[in-house]
Amino acid sequence: MIERYAQEDITAIFSDKTKVKRWQDTEIAVTQAYTESHEFSEADFREFKGALLAHPVDLKWWKRRDEKIHHDLNAFLEERARRLPTRLQPLLHSNMTSYDTQEAAFARTLIDASHLVLKELAKLKEVLQAQALKHRFSLMVGKTHGQQGELQTHGKRCITWLRALEADRLLIEQAKAKLRYSKISGAVGNWGPIHPDIERRALEILGLEPYCGATQIIPREIYTPLADALAQTVLTIDKIALDIRLNARTPLPLYHEPFAKEQKGSSAMPHKKNPINTEQLEGMGRMASTYAAGIKQNIRTWEERAIEQSCVERVFWPDLFHVTMRAVSVLTKVLKGLVIYRHNMLIEIILSRGCYATAGAKEVLKQLVEPHGLKAEDAYRVIQLAAFNIFEYSGPVLSMPKSLDQAEQQLAEFTATWQFETQPTTLADYVMRAELQPSSQLKASAWKIKQWNRALRKVFVCPQARLEWTEAFRPTNVLKHEAHLFEQLCA
Amino acid sequence: MIERYAQEDITAIFSDKTKVKRWQDTEIAVTQAYTESHEFSEADFREFKGALLAHPVDLKWWKRRDEKIHHDLNAFLEERARRLPTRLQPLLHSNMTSYDTQEAAFARTLIDASHLVLKELAKLKEVLQAQALKHRFSLMVGKTHGQQGELQTHGKRCITWLRALEADRLLIEQAKAKLRYSKISGAVGNWGPIHPDIERRALEILGLEPYCGATQIIPREIYTPLADALAQTVLTIDKIALDIRLNARTPLPLYHEPFAKEQKGSSAMPHKKNPINTEQLEGMGRMASTYAAGIKQNIRTWEERAIEQSCVERVFWPDLFHVTMRAVSVLTKVLKGLVIYRHNMLIEIILSRGCYATAGAKEVLKQLVEPHGLKAEDAYRVIQLAAFNIFEYSGPVLSMPKSLDQAEQQLAEFTATWQFETQPTTLADYVMRAELQPSSQLKASAWKIKQWNRALRKVFVCPQARLEWTEAFRPTNVLKHEAHLFEQLCA
Amino acid sequence: MIERYAQEDITAIFSDKTKVKRWQDTEIAVTQAYTESHEFSEADFREFKGALLAHPVDLKWWKRRDEKIHHDLNAFLEERARRLPTRLQPLLHSNMTSYDTQEAAFARTLIDASHLVLKELAKLKEVLQAQALKHRFSLMVGKTHGQQGELQTHGKRCITWLRALEADRLLIEQAKAKLRYSKISGAVGNWGPIHPDIERRALEILGLEPYCGATQIIPREIYTPLADALAQTVLTIDKIALDIRLNARTPLPLYHEPFAKEQKGSSAMPHKKNPINTEQLEGMGRMASTYAAGIKQNIRTWEERAIEQSCVERVFWPDLFHVTMRAVSVLTKVLKGLVIYRHNMLIEIILSRGCYATAGAKEVLKQLVEPHGLKAEDAYRVIQLAAFNIFEYSGPVLSMPKSLDQAEQQLAEFTATWQFETQPTTLADYVMRAELQPSSQLKASAWKIKQWNRALRKVFVCPQARLEWTEAFRPTNVLKHEAHLFEQLCA
Amino acid sequence: MIERYAQEDITAIFSDKTKVKRWQDTEIAVTQAYTESHEFSEADFREFKGALLAHPVDLKWWKRRDEKIHHDLNAFLEERARRLPTRLQPLLHSNMTSYDTQEAAFARTLIDASHLVLKELAKLKEVLQAQALKHRFSLMVGKTHGQQGELQTHGKRCITWLRALEADRLLIEQAKAKLRYSKISGAVGNWGPIHPDIERRALEILGLEPYCGATQIIPREIYTPLADALAQTVLTIDKIALDIRLNARTPLPLYHEPFAKEQKGSSAMPHKKNPINTEQLEGMGRMASTYAAGIKQNIRTWEERAIEQSCVERVFWPDLFHVTMRAVSVLTKVLKGLVIYRHNMLIEIILSRGCYATAGAKEVLKQLVEPHGLKAEDAYRVIQLAAFNIFEYSGPVLSMPKSLDQAEQQLAEFTATWQFETQPTTLADYVMRAELQPSSQLKASAWKIKQWNRALRKVFVCPQARLEWTEAFRPTNVLKHEAHLFEQLCA
Repeated sequence: MIERYAQEDITAIFSDKTKVKRWQDTEIAVTQAYTESHEFSEADFREFKGALLAHPVDLKWWKRRDEKIHHDLNAFLEERARRLPTRLQPLLHSNMTSYDTQEAAFARTLIDASHLVLKELAKLKEVLQAQALKHRFSLMVGKTHGQQGELQTHGKRCITWLRALEADRLLIEQAKAKLRYSKISGAVGNWGPIHPDIERRALEILGLEPYCGATQIIPREIYTPLADALAQTVLTIDKIALDIRLNARTPLPLYHEPFAKEQKGSSAMPHKKNPINTEQLEGMGRMASTYAAGIKQNIRTWEERAIEQSCVERVFWPDLFHVTMRAVSVLTKVLKGLVIYRHNMLIEIILSRGCYATAGAKEVLKQLVEPHGLKAEDAYRVIQLAAFNIFEYSGPVLSMPKSLDQAEQQLAEFTATWQFETQPTTLADYVMRAELQPSSQLKASAWKIKQWNRALRKVFVCPQARLEWTEAFRPTNVLKHEAHLFEQLCA
Repeated sequence: MIERYAQEDITAIFSDKTKVKRWQDTEIAVTQAYTESHEFSEADFREFKGALLAHPVDLKWWKRRDEKIHHDLNAFLEERARRLPTRLQPLLHSNMTSYDTQEAAFARTLIDASHLVLKELAKLKEVLQAQALKHRFSLMVGKTHGQQGELQTHGKRCITWLRALEADRLLIEQAKAKLRYSKISGAVGNWGPIHPDIERRALEILGLEPYCGATQIIPREIYTPLADALAQTVLTIDKIALDIRLNARTPLPLYHEPFAKEQKGSSAMPHKKNPINTEQLEGMGRMASTYAAGIKQNIRTWEERAIEQSCVERVFWPDLFHVTMRAVSVLTKVLKGLVIYRHNMLIEIILSRGCYATAGAKEVLKQLVEPHGLKAEDAYRVIQLAAFNIFEYSGPVLSMPKSLDQAEQQLAEFTATWQFETQPTTLADYVMRAELQPSSQLKASAWKIKQWNRALRKVFVCPQARLEWTEAFRPTNVLKHEAHLFEQLCA
Repeated sequence: MIERYAQEDITAIFSDKTKVKRWQDTEIAVTQAYTESHEFSEADFREFKGALLAHPVDLKWWKRRDEKIHHDLNAFLEERARRLPTRLQPLLHSNMTSYDTQEAAFARTLIDASHLVLKELAKLKEVLQAQALKHRFSLMVGKTHGQQGELQTHGKRCITWLRALEADRLLIEQAKAKLRYSKISGAVGNWGPIHPDIERRALEILGLEPYCGATQIIPREIYTPLADALAQTVLTIDKIALDIRLNARTPLPLYHEPFAKEQKGSSAMPHKKNPINTEQLEGMGRMASTYAAGIKQNIRTWEERAIEQSCVERVFWPDLFHVTMRAVSVLTKVLKGLVIYRHNMLIEIILSRGCYATAGAKEVLKQLVEPHGLKAEDAYRVIQLAAFNIFEYSGPVLSMPKSLDQAEQQLAEFTATWQFETQPTTLADYVMRAELQPSSQLKASAWKIKQWNRALRKVFVCPQARLEWTEAFRPTNVLKHEAHLFEQLCA
Repeated sequence: MIERYAQEDITAIFSDKTKVKRWQDTEIAVTQAYTESHEFSEADFREFKGALLAHPVDLKWWKRRDEKIHHDLNAFLEERARRLPTRLQPLLHSNMTSYDTQEAAFARTLIDASHLVLKELAKLKEVLQAQALKHRFSLMVGKTHGQQGELQTHGKRCITWLRALEADRLLIEQAKAKLRYSKISGAVGNWGPIHPDIERRALEILGLEPYCGATQIIPREIYTPLADALAQTVLTIDKIALDIRLNARTPLPLYHEPFAKEQKGSSAMPHKKNPINTEQLEGMGRMASTYAAGIKQNIRTWEERAIEQSCVERVFWPDLFHVTMRAVSVLTKVLKGLVIYRHNMLIEIILSRGCYATAGAKEVLKQLVEPHGLKAEDAYRVIQLAAFNIFEYSGPVLSMPKSLDQAEQQLAEFTATWQFETQPTTLADYVMRAELQPSSQLKASAWKIKQWNRALRKVFVCPQARLEWTEAFRPTNVLKHEAHLFEQLCA
């Protein structure tokens, strides 16, 4: 991964230094297992282990040798053998094949890296949980299809994010659990010169257990779910980032990602405060999912194994982890410093004119109009028409300008006369007035509208009906069950 | 493709009926080529061709036979042979292998389907071109990063869409041109019993020419670019749809996709007018790009060919064409009926308070402040601070509610007191006032700000400077070069 | 999915008829839950349910209506409402949003389809298990990198296939378990007019439970793992199919997939017996993994939901299931009828000249040569050189022909003189002879080779050494631990 | 890209040093264009350019600054401004936005890197062309479905590889040609303060031309085809590598990739000579195609641009080029050193027993048997049955061993008795003998077979028929048109 996005911890886990260290761990574990079965003497084993531990692998020597013999594990063995007296050389890699050494090392690498991701996710969870509780009662308009929907709180939105991440975390845990299976079972997986008991004991020393049914390698079906789980996690993060970006849009931003005090948004436009972190997270989603798609193809190999998967694994696994770690930590940082414009949330509620409550209001209206001969379907259509009516543009007619000058002129005139309706008619009031108008956007005959208005008038003559109806728009009513979610969060 | 999304024309092109018709075309073309080389007599050929044309392929018989012999082309040949006297049977499929018959037929299928797509794209182009010209002077705020950017017109945005589609069209044309190469060169591509001259002539009859270097099949490298070109086209459409959706968001929609007069937006919320078509186009983008990724893998086959690619091609090619055709025609429909809220475009300009012009205004300010000892960098920072100042929230402090009741109460109070600033201070005026304030969001010392204000006061004492500065915010100035784009469009 | 690959059971599960049936199930479950909370009377509920069950949904009416109102769930509700007296209409879809109806139905669809796949996988497992046991002692050369490796049995290879499929099965089970979570919690997931208790009870009736943290929909993170699990399964099948194809290659096929008695392999070459089923499985792998990649992108949606994912889900889910089911059943059929050429397996062992045992033989040689001053590394190089020596071509020199005539002539001569060495020198014998030769392919000085030969002569003077060495090549020795695998299979 | 796979030239092209150098090129080009329009004085421009060129960018300073202001291009401008007297600072980045600087630089990077790939492809082409000509008459069995097909030459196979690469090369050229379009047209693409003439002239200086219809950036549709072209190239290479691997399989390898003289194939099995390079090329194909899929998603951005694509481009473009360059050069190396076992090619022809000619032989037989009352279909079935007959196993019956001991015993017995038929019956002879037998694998009644044998006897009584029939199997006959391919190669 390029320096800009590399995560230090991941770099360390996937470094050559750590890799050969882990290879040596496998080698020593196997020799220990043999020693415990009295194949080698205790004293020899101690000397063997001591000699290896005393001299870290000479990475330069190793690489030069690899270039000669075109086999990195054999080059490593030759490097290690240099540190052993001839007598002890047979203790090294005894009865093993290269992937006996490598598979266990690789599984442990993935386990360690997954562990880091899980730790980072735990931090993100904490931040989200705190934000959910803090904004337990921060009212906002929920949005479906980018359009004003029902009322909700920002705290509740945090919970929906949190829970999706929880699903990802569980998936990573499940995938990580599969990694405990590994193999030291020889060139085609039926042990050959090595004994299944040596495999079991050596893996145990390494914190692993034997996979039944290996070839020269572990089938990649064991690793693939982790790649999918990581990619899914980054896609969830991308979705959360998307929500933040969508709600950071001018002219009425609800959120803003943290902006450093010396930051510049643009070289051309000094006023810019761009959500570059959340945008980048979309790119990270693209990267993570393509890496996972590549890794998945590694299931395909020839018979007892070929080496098609090696280069993909050398590159894509660390890069996938870098991207995942970065995505988690960037989102954590963004959420920690997230600026939340509660006043704009309230303004948006005002501008929705009560549409934030139509799901429940419609149910109330159904019951109110039924005695007056209207069907459930009519109640639906009444509210639809009312909503279309109140949002109808009623300002000055805007002719199509024929030149830039005309356009400039029109803008100037509009600016001079334009006023926001600060106390706009709400849907609740409008329906009670029973003065529905035809709309060019909806099919409803004049006769039908007349019938509706007549019924509405009859309904709303009754104060109890007016009360029931207006109650339907009260936040305490719309949100009365949201508490249920928070109870589960705190449980 | 499921009925919901299937495009009739594409269904016809990929139907079994059309397929076997095209197979027969190849067979007849080859026999004609042989006849022209005096391999068969003219009379025999006429009888042969007549017999085949007189009896369309019995599709049921063909399928039943295929199930027996597990080879659809052989089953087709057996079906056809039934219509020929024994004497003429050797005229059928003489010296050929199955893919000699199929490749030319397949290329022609893709050519025909591409042609349909290109026709549909031409309609889309017309709609976009008309809209670009109509809205040549419809002022709007351009948006980068979802934040207000420089001023532009809706017409100009249409041109950027149009040109991206033009790039796609060109790519399809280039990919389509590759399809003219086909093969009738036997079981491994070195002709065997058939003669290169027969291949050339038969392909010529079919409107094609020989590909040099075939195996039993044409390498899939010849077809892949078309899949990529189609997928790219749908991704462009997805991007355009995304722009429409983004600008259809409440509370200040600039666009709205057409909404049918009896349409319902939601079963719960009657007020909803959701941009479901443009949303669907994102899904179409997902489909098209995954189909193309699958088709690309078909390059991989064994030696002189194996049949891994066949099922992918049978399913993904027609599905990719269905999705592409649908995407193009849905976008055409959406753009044709697109509702454009010009008043909201103007409101958005007002709400941007002049930020739509900072790119040029910064350049003017650079020159104005230079004589007063400020650097280019200072001019940048002055406008940045001014922009941050004017958008600072100055309403009532909103404490964090501790219950739903409190939240409801706070909303009610806010609603009662809140007012939109209808004539808000513009950036231009604010800078001229030379009263920059510190901002919690930017690093700028009190001393620095004092220095800036002092310089600004000195600058704007001069009426010429005030004029130059305010001129920088005039649309006629900001957009003075946009005409250049339209000239090219009309050229 | 096109008819050719469609699986009847999957078609039924995803049919419109089943879909609206499931939608109705949700509707009735919710109404029942309300009834149990005394919202509606028992009698009304019975009448309501009776009316709906008595009249299956009129699919034509429904589709026509959908085309008008552009909302399939609303069209369904209108269709259902026709069957209810006005009085009972409010019992339908009370306080619900469309996706309250659909999500539970969708989860149940996926559960049912997964169930079918698991059943089909169980059959495949049985076939593989039987084959493993039957061929418990069918000796063959294991292959790594497509090159002869250690000895194994065909039974053992079956186990490696079986276990990879087991990993897939487990993954599907884990993914299926996640599907039990669903939602009936209103337009943005905080219930609004509906009550969490109604949700819980209605889902319980449907065999599901509430997901905590829904928006208008269940986050797609809950469904995605299933798509990944299915794709992974097909990729495992593709890998198994690949092994079969690789071992079906002429001129020494070990396997052959079943070939029907009237089947034709090629329209040009009558002698062909192509492995078209296993080849097709590679194409199925391409399809399945691209479908899964598309489905994964559905995680991305706007805020409380938009509808980007809908078209992808309508097409890719059934298609993914069709492909998966077909892949499983094709492989089952292939394995059931797999022709296994045991004589060719033995011939391949003979042709390997003992290389099938070098992993263990090398360990023996290490110990034999150590007293004679050679290192472990020398033992390795001795066997390497011996292997290169015995496979060196020693036939007539073949000059490069300059014309087709010359080439034909050369072939004729070669054919006349060529003989397979029927009892070729084995590696074991060759090493014991101690007559290693230089090889143009390996770096080893004449002096080094002399030293090796000298040491080998000394070693093999001793009958015990000869015995130990030849024992290393006995199958009973090489395979002595394979039993361990079969014990686990039968456990 | 990790060190193991990184290509030096690509690393240099994508280095930070080269990047900022190219950014500076754009800046200077724009300033030059302004100077030519008399915006700045010649003398100032010379001083400006001189100052910049005299001081290379201080990369450390630049990075530290970027970390502060979170904008790499702005940090670069600040770094450059340090080298300019205040008076000349306005000459830098005048009226420009960041992507005005970056897009042209980026296009030039891709052009240069593509150029390298094309050069490397030219070398590969030369190697292939030479090999094609050298092996113009190296007879081998063509393979379809991994089964023996028609006769061909290795030279011809080289041509099929070469031509697929030619198609890729053309695609890269077409994609590269698109890169000449770039933009210096301001923050939203309508120039704002900059003038279209400045854009045109500055791009001309850089060897580019203006793209009509940019937003803040060039639409990614302009770059995407290059990624697709590169990925397709690597997939072709993967296919060629696959052919080599398939034909390197034991026990009858036709090819072997070069094996270094000190190389080790395996740590366990010294005899191994694994085709690790061609295997790796499959992994490279996986990487390249996933990178391209990721890059394609970059088409999706918001309105006049957001920055989702940036991280993907920073990582995937250089990585895609590294992989492509490596793939091309690895294949070149493999083909250059490819070991070709011509004797094994001849042995394979012998073992095919004449099946290499059935496509043409069938046509001959059709005509021979027609006078004797057999149809074309009969000729097909006769050859099919004959082929099945001659390959029928006729050795000792092999019972299924019940233990390892029995298996070992059976192998020993089989080894002792087994003999390769060195002069096996050919298909040609077998058919002439007219002694077709029933086969358990084909449906053909005893009566039918009798009829066929009778007809064959009648046919082959005639010496002329015997001659015609055996001629059909002569290589000079089967390959008579292959010359046509080589003529085109040399044209």
